[in-house]
Amino acid sequence: MYGSMEGDTVHVPAPAREQFYDNRGYGHPRGDALALSSVEAAHLLFRDDLEAVDGMGFRSFLATTNTLVRFLVYKDLRERGFYLSPARDGWVGSDTTDDVDFVVYPRGNGPWDGVTEYRVRVVGERESIPASSLTGTLAVVDEESEITYFSVETPDVTGSTDHDLPQDVSGMLLADRVVLWDVPPVLYENAFYGQPLDPRDTADDGSASGSAKPMSIQCSLVEAAHLADRGIVRVDAGLDGVVERGRAVEGERFDRRRAAYSTLRGRGIVPKTGYKFGADFRTYANVEHVGDLDHSEQLVRVLPSDHSVSPRDLALDVRLAHGVRKRMVFALTDATGAIDWRSISRLTP
Amino acid sequence: MYGSMEGDTVHVPAPAREQFYDNRGYGHPRGDALALSSVEAAHLLFRDDLEAVDGMGFRSFLATTNTLVRFLVYKDLRERGFYLSPARDGWVGSDTTDDVDFVVYPRGNGPWDGVTEYRVRVVGERESIPASSLTGTLAVVDEESEITYFSVETPDVTGSTDHDLPQDVSGMLLADRVVLWDVPPVLYENAFYGQPLDPRDTADDGSASGSAKPMSIQCSLVEAAHLADRGIVRVDAGLDGVVERGRAVEGERFDRRRAAYSTLRGRGIVPKTGYKFGADFRTYANVEHVGDLDHSEQLVRVLPSDHSVSPRDLALDVRLAHGVRKRMVFALTDATGAIDWRSISRLTP
Repeated sequence: MYGSMEGDTVHVPAPAREQFYDNRGYGHPRGDALALSSVEAAHLLFRDDLEAVDGMGFRSFLATTNTLVRFLVYKDLRERGFYLSPARDGWVGSDTTDDVDFVVYPRGNGPWDGVTEYRVRVVGERESIPASSLTGTLAVVDEESEITYFSVETPDVTGSTDHDLPQDVSGMLLADRVVLWDVPPVLYENAFYGQPLDPRDTADDGSASGSAKPMSIQCSLVEAAHLADRGIVRVDAGLDGVVERGRAVEGERFDRRRAAYSTLRGRGIVPKTGYKFGADFRTYANVEHVGDLDHSEQLVRVLPSDHSVSPRDLALDVRLAHGVRKRMVFALTDATGAIDWRSISRLTP
Repeated sequence: MYGSMEGDTVHVPAPAREQFYDNRGYGHPRGDALALSSVEAAHLLFRDDLEAVDGMGFRSFLATTNTLVRFLVYKDLRERGFYLSPARDGWVGSDTTDDVDFVVYPRGNGPWDGVTEYRVRVVGERESIPASSLTGTLAVVDEESEITYFSVETPDVTGSTDHDLPQDVSGMLLADRVVLWDVPPVLYENAFYGQPLDPRDTADDGSASGSAKPMSIQCSLVEAAHLADRGIVRVDAGLDGVVERGRAVEGERFDRRRAAYSTLRGRGIVPKTGYKFGADFRTYANVEHVGDLDHSEQLVRVLPSDHSVSPRDLALDVRLAHGVRKRMVFALTDATGAIDWRSISRLTP
C-alpha cells in the first residue's frame, strides 16, 4: 500500500483501516481509510508493510521527516509487544498534554479498549527537561540510540519519628557548623540531630533508654537552623547568624535545603546529609534510636521549582539510588518554601 | 603543660619534645621544646594532654583559631592509628605543596622515619576544587562532619582493540546521529562502532568470524566524526557537517569529547556512551567481537582542563563507579585536545 503526506499526517486509502488499525492498532480511522502519524508511517515503511509515502521509502522518509528519535522509541515499544498511539488531540483520550508523545496500551489491548498503561514522553539525551514537567513515563534516547525508561511518581513523604526534646540547649557557631557542648544525648541518640564530636560518647548497646550523660554534638547549619527555629537550641550567633552563615557558604540553596529539611522533619522523617550519595539528604522515616537504625530509604535532591534537569544527571541519580536500594526523590522548592515532591525510578516496560 | 601562641604556631616549653614528639609524633622539635601547629595543639587540648594555650581550653581555642575542619581530619587519622605532620616547609620533606595539609606516615612510623603513606589535602564539602590540582589523597569533610577519603592516581589508559576496517563506507547525517546503511558488519561486530538499527541484524552466536551480510548501523556524532576523520566513513554532510552538528547540539563540549574519544580509540580502547552511568563514556580495553564482550572497565568524564569539581559531584561519580565495579576516570582536556588523565577512587586509610 501507498500513503500520501497531508501536513504532518500520512493518509492511506481503504482498506488501510482494517489492515493496520483493526488488526494492529496503527493510526486513526477515517472511515475505511487511515490517518497515520509520521512515526507510525515510518514504522510501517521500516517493516515493508507500507511500500512508499509520496514515493519515499523508509530511508528517504526518515531523512525528510524529523522522526528518528521518536521512531526509535515507537519501534522499541512495538518490539516489546505493545500497541501505542501518538498522543494527538482526538486520536487518544482527552487528557493529552504537550508533554506526552505516545499513549501506550496494556499488552493485549489497543486504542479501542480505552485503557492506558503508560503515557510516554520522548526526550533526546541532550535535551533539558523542566523538572516541574516531569510526570508519567520518560523515554530517553541516548546518543547511541539506546533507550532508558523512567517512571515519575508522587511519593508518599511521611514518617513516624517523634521525640520529646529539651528547650534552650546552647550551641556555638564554628565556621560552617554548630557545636552543642555537653547537651542531653536524646538530641543525637533518639532524634538523630548532628554527630557526636567524640565517638566514645556514643552508647554502643543500642538501648533505647540512652544514657543521661551529656555529650557534645556537631550539627550542620540546616540542622542548627531547624533546632534554633524551634527553640530547642539557642545558638550564640542567633538563628539569624546561622542563616546568614548558611547563605554565605551556600547562597540561596541554603534556604531551599532548609525548607526541605524542616518539611521532612515536620512529617516525622529524619533527613541526614546525602553527601556520600551526591544528594542533599538521605532520609530515615522511623528513628527510635541511632543504635538501632535501618538503612535510609530515600535520597533527596532539592531543586529550585524552575530548575531544568539533564537526562544524563537524571540517569546518574536514578542509577546510584537504585544501586543502594533507595528511592530517588526530587524536592522542587519554590521561593515560599512550598515543595512539589517527585520520585523517579528506572522502568522496564 | 601549657602552650603559647606565636603567629600560627603554638610553642610548648621543654620537656614537650620528649613527651609529644619523641613518644607520639606531634609537632616539630625546638631543642627540648616543641613547636605545634594549631591543629596539633587542638588535638592535645581535646585529649587533655595540654591544659591550655594562652589560657584557652579546647573549646575557646577552636573558636579562636580556624581549625575545626582540619582538626576533624587530624583526629580521624590519629584514631585510625597514624602519626601525621602538618605539611609545613621545614617540618616535613621538601616536596610539600599548597595542595597538601598533612603528611601521614605508615602505621608504626613517625616523622623521624622519612617514609610517607599519604599526602592528605583537606576540603570542606562546599569547596570547589580545580580538577587539575587533584592529586594524592583528598579528605572531604561533609556538612555533618563525616569524612570521606579519595585517592587520585594517573591511570594506565591503554587497550588492545585493533581491527582492519573498510574505507569510504557511506553515512547519512540524520538529526543528531549518523546512519550507515548496509555496511560491512565488522564495523559494529568487531570494532564496536554504533548500534544496529535492527536488532535482528546482529549475529547471536558470538562467533568472531561474523557474517558478511551488510547491516545498518546508527552512530553517535563523536563516533561518526572519528570514522569520517579516518576515511572509514564518508558522511553525506562531510566531516565538517558532522562536527558542525555536534557543536550545534553540545557546544564546545563536543570538541572535548571528540578529542577524548579519538585518543582512547588511538590507544586501543573502545569508548561507548556512558549515558546510563551519567558519564561521557564507558570503555572497553579489548574488544574482539560484540557477542563476546566483557563488562566495560572504566567510566570516563571529560572535563575542560580548567574545570573545578565539587566534592559532592565527586562523591556521586566515585560512588556510582564503585557500585558498578568500574574505575572512575577524568579526562582533563585542553583546547588543543591534549588530555591529562586522573582516576579517582574511595580510600579507607
